[in-house]
Amino acid sequence: MAIRTVQNYAEGQWVSGTTLSPIACAFNGSVIAQCGSDGLDFAAILRHARTTGGRALRQLSFHDRATLVKALGQAILDRKEELYALSFNTGATRADSWIDIEGGAGALLSMASKAKRELPNAHILIDGELEKLGRTGSFAGLHVYTAKQGVAVHINAYNFPVWGMLEKLGPALLAGLPVIVKPSQVSSYVAEQAVRIMLDTGLVPAGALQLVSGSLGDLFEHLTGQDVVGFTGSAATSLLLQQHPVIAREAVSFNAERDSLNASILGPDAGPGTPEFDLFIKEVAKEMTVKAGQKCTAIRRAIVPAAFIDDAERALIARLSAVTVGDPRRDDVRMGPLVSRSQRDNVLATVAKLSHAARVVTSSPKGQSLLGDALNEGAFMAPTLLRADNPWNAPSIHEEEAFGPVSTLMPYADFDDAIALANRGGGSLALSVVTHDSAVARDLVMGSAAFHGRVVVIDRDCAGESTGHGSPMPVLVHGGPGRAGGGEELGGMRAVKHLMQRSALQGSPASLSAIVAEYLPGTPQIPADIHPFRKRMSELEIGYTLNTASRTVSLEDIEQFAHFTGDTFYAHMDEVAAAASPIFGGRVAHGYLILSFAAGLFVDPAPGPVLANFGLEQLRFVKPLKPGDTMKVALTAKSKALRNATMGEVRWAVAVTNQNDELVASYDLLTMNTP
Amino acid sequence: MAIRTVQNYAEGQWVSGTTLSPIACAFNGSVIAQCGSDGLDFAAILRHARTTGGRALRQLSFHDRATLVKALGQAILDRKEELYALSFNTGATRADSWIDIEGGAGALLSMASKAKRELPNAHILIDGELEKLGRTGSFAGLHVYTAKQGVAVHINAYNFPVWGMLEKLGPALLAGLPVIVKPSQVSSYVAEQAVRIMLDTGLVPAGALQLVSGSLGDLFEHLTGQDVVGFTGSAATSLLLQQHPVIAREAVSFNAERDSLNASILGPDAGPGTPEFDLFIKEVAKEMTVKAGQKCTAIRRAIVPAAFIDDAERALIARLSAVTVGDPRRDDVRMGPLVSRSQRDNVLATVAKLSHAARVVTSSPKGQSLLGDALNEGAFMAPTLLRADNPWNAPSIHEEEAFGPVSTLMPYADFDDAIALANRGGGSLALSVVTHDSAVARDLVMGSAAFHGRVVVIDRDCAGESTGHGSPMPVLVHGGPGRAGGGEELGGMRAVKHLMQRSALQGSPASLSAIVAEYLPGTPQIPADIHPFRKRMSELEIGYTLNTASRTVSLEDIEQFAHFTGDTFYAHMDEVAAAASPIFGGRVAHGYLILSFAAGLFVDPAPGPVLANFGLEQLRFVKPLKPGDTMKVALTAKSKALRNATMGEVRWAVAVTNQNDELVASYDLLTMNTP
Repeated sequence: MAIRTVQNYAEGQWVSGTTLSPIACAFNGSVIAQCGSDGLDFAAILRHARTTGGRALRQLSFHDRATLVKALGQAILDRKEELYALSFNTGATRADSWIDIEGGAGALLSMASKAKRELPNAHILIDGELEKLGRTGSFAGLHVYTAKQGVAVHINAYNFPVWGMLEKLGPALLAGLPVIVKPSQVSSYVAEQAVRIMLDTGLVPAGALQLVSGSLGDLFEHLTGQDVVGFTGSAATSLLLQQHPVIAREAVSFNAERDSLNASILGPDAGPGTPEFDLFIKEVAKEMTVKAGQKCTAIRRAIVPAAFIDDAERALIARLSAVTVGDPRRDDVRMGPLVSRSQRDNVLATVAKLSHAARVVTSSPKGQSLLGDALNEGAFMAPTLLRADNPWNAPSIHEEEAFGPVSTLMPYADFDDAIALANRGGGSLALSVVTHDSAVARDLVMGSAAFHGRVVVIDRDCAGESTGHGSPMPVLVHGGPGRAGGGEELGGMRAVKHLMQRSALQGSPASLSAIVAEYLPGTPQIPADIHPFRKRMSELEIGYTLNTASRTVSLEDIEQFAHFTGDTFYAHMDEVAAAASPIFGGRVAHGYLILSFAAGLFVDPAPGPVLANFGLEQLRFVKPLKPGDTMKVALTAKSKALRNATMGEVRWAVAVTNQNDELVASYDLLTMNTP
Repeated sequence: MAIRTVQNYAEGQWVSGTTLSPIACAFNGSVIAQCGSDGLDFAAILRHARTTGGRALRQLSFHDRATLVKALGQAILDRKEELYALSFNTGATRADSWIDIEGGAGALLSMASKAKRELPNAHILIDGELEKLGRTGSFAGLHVYTAKQGVAVHINAYNFPVWGMLEKLGPALLAGLPVIVKPSQVSSYVAEQAVRIMLDTGLVPAGALQLVSGSLGDLFEHLTGQDVVGFTGSAATSLLLQQHPVIAREAVSFNAERDSLNASILGPDAGPGTPEFDLFIKEVAKEMTVKAGQKCTAIRRAIVPAAFIDDAERALIARLSAVTVGDPRRDDVRMGPLVSRSQRDNVLATVAKLSHAARVVTSSPKGQSLLGDALNEGAFMAPTLLRADNPWNAPSIHEEEAFGPVSTLMPYADFDDAIALANRGGGSLALSVVTHDSAVARDLVMGSAAFHGRVVVIDRDCAGESTGHGSPMPVLVHGGPGRAGGGEELGGMRAVKHLMQRSALQGSPASLSAIVAEYLPGTPQIPADIHPFRKRMSELEIGYTLNTASRTVSLEDIEQFAHFTGDTFYAHMDEVAAAASPIFGGRVAHGYLILSFAAGLFVDPAPGPVLANFGLEQLRFVKPLKPGDTMKVALTAKSKALRNATMGEVRWAVAVTNQNDELVASYDLLTMNTP
């Protein structure tokens, strides 16, 4: 097999480094690739990203960027077999690679779809409500997110060369940030191919995506406060990078996801014989062996009631001994090798350290009988379970991560002890509890959530659909405090907001409204000359306002409405009881009557550009409307967003007032319109 | 006057340091106080905060904590004169101190009131919506914020010893974090008195507030990933602290607000003779002289159209020359001294540096004729305006902050140049533009917001109520990227969320619902035996569900509703037109009819614990209801929150379904209830 030279994609060109390091196949040790980045001009790479790439991305709306992200995810799926073929060399079985490749593409698709639903088809994202800052409302504040004018530098771990790249790439592109990807060298050939697939779409704006397959040279020297660094990997490397003087000096945003001594707790209710006991054993064994335990979220500490620890040990031994280890290309192999012999040797050294504090229960360092041929030079090891009966006297089991198929079983005295042991890890990415008792789950969250970025409650009710302890989800945050690095990624659009700058804007409502292209309370209105329902969305101006005729609401109206709808609540029907209410002080019109009559006042009945009213938000009934009161409505075009070529959404601010111009009710009305 | 010994409040005791440094009065140089923290056991102080203080705060609900924060703000207001009397010694005029003292108390009151309105009366804060993670909905995700189990260490600047302390203290207490305050020594006597006033209320839980008046000793050595450090001050100190090895190693959250070369831009439309020109001159002069320019948000760079720069210079000279400088206790003094002679000397040294790149337009280093007696040893200087005609050749004016009454005037060629100059500061806390042209304001935000934490648009319309360029507001974020430190404070409840841990929870809806004490979609319902409107709030179980009788909607119902309300939209009335609609495919019932009939089905009319329906949220019409269809309603108690002793709010999940159990509409109904 030819040795592949992993290239760099810099300033629009594929280029090889001038010095290359060899990369070995995980399962047979042969050199399969070489990579390097010597000779690259890192300042120029940053400049290319910031100017060419950033400028192009910032011109796209959130929805345009979502379309791009979706296309990239689809391209990965369309050519996934190229990636599977390469991925075996990292030691991954097809099931392991599925997480990486299809999981990565799926993350892009999930983000793209959420972006279309939750972000506006615009360039600025409003955060929260208008804040009135003066008595009359002539001065106000509003928060917005805008695109940073820098670059996202992504330093990825070796274990998920595709997913690890895409979970960072998607949010950055959605945020309008060009990306420089630096994969781990040992699996860089997979990342490189994924980048080629994405660039082959021809959809990525020039400068929006570059790849550095070797070291980052002097790149950090040139970072600024508009840039963001996303790091996944070891604590040692993370510290080195985070303490680079430029990071603090320029206040470069640095998001780290690193070592994590994740724990899973067996609930006190979940003894042998319960479905939860079996689920726990299955989960621990799975987390030890999927991807040969090289998962930042894997269960490193299995914490069980002291009374059940012998049962748990026996059940785990039984399960682990059935795990087949060998050539990851074989269908009958459950666990492949680690990514490299040096990584394997690190893990074995850590196990040796841990074994001073914990007894090795099951292990066979070079792997039990390996399935496959010519595997002698492969980076194999067997699943290794340790047991520490005095976990409070064994600091290393809470502090040293063996990044392989390794976990330590330990007992807890009572549930407070279990919580304390979980937190003893000093912060993790994922904590799980296997229990069918909601009170146990609640206690765990109250006592422990502050230490863990994700807390999973596993029980018989959710086991069928549970994605398990170890799977970060695109819609949920991923990261953890303390030892886990203090970072946060994913979480749907939270990830996008993290990468943008939030600023407070202040000014008159008219200024703010012009800036965000949305009608805000207090903005001067544009009086309608023709009915707004007669205007296509493109013709409808923000602030365009229909002031309706008025209608007096009689006691007969209220009674008729009550009898017709069946809503005979005393406040509408019983003068004596209603008069006794401190809120009403007499009979009042139904809120739903007000809404219905309001529609009667503002609706223009003939077919036209308004296709349907599909919802209503933030309705508040502010002041009761009494028999004899007169109501009228102001209907104002508040914001609009194209959904697709034939459909758009218009949000209308509706204010219902009485004969004294006092606000009776206000709400946002949502309609589907012809563009 | 006796020399005051500024003490420390540590582990529940007021104690003096063993070595004390003198503090001089700003206006006459006499030693008025001494402070120090030698001899304190910082590890014990942290322990006291985390265990005693943190535990007590975490037992309080958000509303309880808001009550505490409000009481502290009120206590400061009640005893404000004690603080004003001390504050003169820092060089502050009464107007300057108003910002600090009443502004600080006001910030607490604002936060407390927002917390009561926007946070639940609970211990966990839900973030966002339930995320369905499996096909059937048996496994789901939900984000929550929980209190960190650490301590907030607040390192404050000298310029606002009260406001600077309270703007950080309020959010921390609301987040359930105990606080260790470290004021700047030079104004520590004001901060100490404010702490005494707050402790005198007797309301602060033991351990929730400690004060270190001198250096922090080895405190940083003992920080963990559950702790947060909030820093305001110079870049040099910030870097020193942020690069302490413990910060990165333990992933301690570090929020910095530091040097910032804030700019104000005069719009191209705002030439001499316009109201905006006058507003600009007034704003620049005000920002130079309020608090003798010792404000992190002050305008350091005044950027004006080249054509107007001479006019601007003349107008600024005129305005600045009218500023009276002297004894801050005098009513006729507009500007007092700087906080200390060493601070004044620093500023003068920076001005000397800047003067290589910019011409000094107006200055008299020791202050013009000073108003008052015995001021020779005071730290006075005159307002100093510089002018740089080639701002692109003058790096120092964009990089060196003279933290006193100093600003540099500079021209721009066109508005893109103005934006580039604003951004040349490398990140700031506040940028303002004075313009009456919304397009200019929008261009500025699009081009510049990513570099500035706050962007203020000033014009004739908002000038009357504008809080100006330099005032951070409790409801708006404060902080800025890059040179400004990359931090974010304030911003209403955003500040509280920053200080809590966000975690993703996963599990069955039933588990998640039990954890957050809120009904979630998919949670098993509790079928109502008695009507939920007959239950007091305290008796109402989360998940308690009324399944109503059903009602068939006839064409006559639709016609009657249309004629009664006046809503004769074609989709309800015109079979031919409605049949042509891809959304309806025939006549359908009004959305408001569905809402009204739903109320008719679920309302129990007699007076009882449900006092009023005050609103409705997240309404979506999912599937049209056609003539002959039958509707029914499930009304489920979703969450409840006590508003006060006699009133509470219940949120109900309402699902309207048809005869095939398909969802027709869903919404949250809000009612006011008897507790």
